[in-house]
Amino acid sequence: MSLKVAIAGVTGAVGQEFLTILEERNFPATEYKFLASSRSAGKQMTFMGQEYIIEELTEDSFEDTDIALFSAGGSISKKFAPAAAKRGCTVVDNSSAFRMEDDVPLVIPEINSDTIYPNKGIIANPNCSTIIGIVPVWPLHQANPVRRMIVSTYQAVSGAGWQAMEELKSQVRDALEGKELHPQAFQHPCAFNVFSHDSEIGEDGYNVEETKLVHETHKIFNDNSIAITGTCIRVPVLRAHCESINLEFENPMPVERVVDLLHQAPGIQIVDDRENNYFPMPLDAMGQNDILVGRIRQDESLSDQHGINIFVAGDQLRKGAALNAVQIAEYLAK
Amino acid sequence: MSLKVAIAGVTGAVGQEFLTILEERNFPATEYKFLASSRSAGKQMTFMGQEYIIEELTEDSFEDTDIALFSAGGSISKKFAPAAAKRGCTVVDNSSAFRMEDDVPLVIPEINSDTIYPNKGIIANPNCSTIIGIVPVWPLHQANPVRRMIVSTYQAVSGAGWQAMEELKSQVRDALEGKELHPQAFQHPCAFNVFSHDSEIGEDGYNVEETKLVHETHKIFNDNSIAITGTCIRVPVLRAHCESINLEFENPMPVERVVDLLHQAPGIQIVDDRENNYFPMPLDAMGQNDILVGRIRQDESLSDQHGINIFVAGDQLRKGAALNAVQIAEYLAK
Repeated sequence: MSLKVAIAGVTGAVGQEFLTILEERNFPATEYKFLASSRSAGKQMTFMGQEYIIEELTEDSFEDTDIALFSAGGSISKKFAPAAAKRGCTVVDNSSAFRMEDDVPLVIPEINSDTIYPNKGIIANPNCSTIIGIVPVWPLHQANPVRRMIVSTYQAVSGAGWQAMEELKSQVRDALEGKELHPQAFQHPCAFNVFSHDSEIGEDGYNVEETKLVHETHKIFNDNSIAITGTCIRVPVLRAHCESINLEFENPMPVERVVDLLHQAPGIQIVDDRENNYFPMPLDAMGQNDILVGRIRQDESLSDQHGINIFVAGDQLRKGAALNAVQIAEYLAK
Repeated sequence: MSLKVAIAGVTGAVGQEFLTILEERNFPATEYKFLASSRSAGKQMTFMGQEYIIEELTEDSFEDTDIALFSAGGSISKKFAPAAAKRGCTVVDNSSAFRMEDDVPLVIPEINSDTIYPNKGIIANPNCSTIIGIVPVWPLHQANPVRRMIVSTYQAVSGAGWQAMEELKSQVRDALEGKELHPQAFQHPCAFNVFSHDSEIGEDGYNVEETKLVHETHKIFNDNSIAITGTCIRVPVLRAHCESINLEFENPMPVERVVDLLHQAPGIQIVDDRENNYFPMPLDAMGQNDILVGRIRQDESLSDQHGINIFVAGDQLRKGAALNAVQIAEYLAK
């Protein structure tokens, strides 16, 4: 049986992570095609011991392709994903272009793999901070409905791509040498600094990263009743996001029950060693598939054990992007 | 009129900041005495153009002293602050040693300067993350009682002293060169990392930094009814803390009213430029006396405008420590 897979945006940070994860998981493709902008087209690359030439992404790239993993930005997805779908290729799109369309499944396999079919040839991968935040909330919500969720994020720079990761490293050096800083990937210096997320800000003052968290969670949980509010912040970390999450439940939710539920849930690793002050950290989450969950505490600001605080860390390029998309593609490959 | 002032712990990060602030504010002392451990005693230092010899801190250091600013750690304060008080010297203590004692005022001058008298010769300076978080909450609470406060912090390493600031800088260099990291100031690497606060953890899973936030706020606001929960996290930033604060009010609290109240309040600077995505950042807060407040948004997860989100930044060594203590000393000097 043949399974032809294309990667659109292969030169980007998520594109490169696709390669690592497809190889690690021994993805059942029989043939690969690597696509990028005309700037990168013609360049050679090696994947699983084989040489490939990067091809320019065009509408015709998908004539003989079964599955395409897209991570080349929203405008590229808008232009080429429907063209791919029209040619019978199913796109797993990492951009925000189609996420909120009614007939596009928005999928975290641990939560709603049952929504992958039917689809019109496009399946959306949720935003990184949404995935990392709600993978651990889902098993709790199933056991005891979440009424309200308050999130503050500590987001790595990798969400803004390679350039941002390189900028953090070089800027830290410049800052230590007392040089003037000239931020390019971000508006503000990221070295030894923290700043509000660099996405567009709406009339209500929330940036798009924060509104994604609300709307995507509602769609993925298929439950618009959960009250959600978020504050999304960048920190000088390379590639794993952290989130401080406060949850209010419909019924009492003792810490022990949260721990039990998380122990049984897929994609989660509990890191909650109070004795040794060892909790989720981006340096530990980096390169890992699981979301690390810890600082599991009863929130005594709510009565009768209705509140819980947790702190989570997850690799932005893996579960926050490439891994989740490959997991969706594994369902499509079945 | 003579006013003799002693600084205990003058060689520390807060001790050095005392000097900067006393000079900046032209503090009305007629004589200074600089105290430290026997290790630093005998060393020369310059302050406001005058040479001083650092003296060893002993019980007798305070015989002829009117005001002492202490920042030498809790055990030193426990030993020497009562000795100073017994000799008629009033101590402003930056440690946590006396903060929760009933007969010790715990003071943020913008909030409760009226509690400075009576005192038994010891006045406590609150914890840095408490001060930075609640200076902007107070004017709101006075206008419309805060019912619940949920805080996630982004704390600089300076709270752990000079050594921690130097460690962050050298560790960032080591990390970039791929060297193995050997954390000393903290248990975990701080370069390109984020970790749960390095204070002791209680049976409920909250670290001492988080419980301070609850108990100190209750004492300073003189209101135990506010439900408070916090998650305290260190980020790779040198000397200014940020905090993401979610507030629930007794009555509706529109954003415009919050902005008005904060505009009129002392010690606060609103930095909330949505158009240019310019909000409070530790790099901007560094060296400033004011707490920067921004990301002022209605929290739509609560009905009828009962909720507000804000994001604040404040210099941990200034308003979080030395400045607040000097402000208290200014009341004592009157």
